[in-house]
Amino acid sequence: METLQAVDASDTQPSCCSAQDELVVGDEQAQRLAKVFKALGDPTRVKLLSLISASADAEMCVCDLTEPVGLSQPTVSHHMKQLVEAGLVTREQRGRWAYYSPVTSVLTEATRSLTA
Amino acid sequence: METLQAVDASDTQPSCCSAQDELVVGDEQAQRLAKVFKALGDPTRVKLLSLISASADAEMCVCDLTEPVGLSQPTVSHHMKQLVEAGLVTREQRGRWAYYSPVTSVLTEATRSLTA
Repeated sequence: METLQAVDASDTQPSCCSAQDELVVGDEQAQRLAKVFKALGDPTRVKLLSLISASADAEMCVCDLTEPVGLSQPTVSHHMKQLVEAGLVTREQRGRWAYYSPVTSVLTEATRSLTA
Repeated sequence: METLQAVDASDTQPSCCSAQDELVVGDEQAQRLAKVFKALGDPTRVKLLSLISASADAEMCVCDLTEPVGLSQPTVSHHMKQLVEAGLVTREQRGRWAYYSPVTSVLTEATRSLTA
């Protein structure tokens, strides 16, 4: 009887891993997250996002980003394009200059997906 | 006199940006953060870290990582090496197998540096 009871008990255990599987990112989400992280896989782009995030107005003109990173405006614009495409910043053209604002939720959500 | 007063007033304004500058990451930190994010700039590595972070034991054998990502063990080990070098996981050899554990603080701290 004891053996039978033990078998019964094991039958009532939850089926393997269903809750765990839900925490694992799927293929499509992995692609999306990798794009976000890849955009920050470069020290210049890390610094550019840092500058914009730390700016008092929560936005920065491309004209103010060149000097801190010591690069030409076309090069800075090229880096900024990758941050825009990853969703990490938004870009607004105002007259002659482009202005960038951080979208902090994109990085925090991406990180949360991997550390929950 | 009015003109002179205006000049005096501007002299008493705080000097530009000192608090803001402290929030901006320096060159060395930017290098370090970029390394962390670059390691996750690949969908397979995103999925591997996700699997390890979601594991019930907070560690996973390399032998259990191959099937979910559909890659050979040498390829998985190659990807895992990059996660280890970025500090995102630790590796422990036990007998025949390597076991990996997540170091979630590395990613959360890196993200915090850019979203403060």
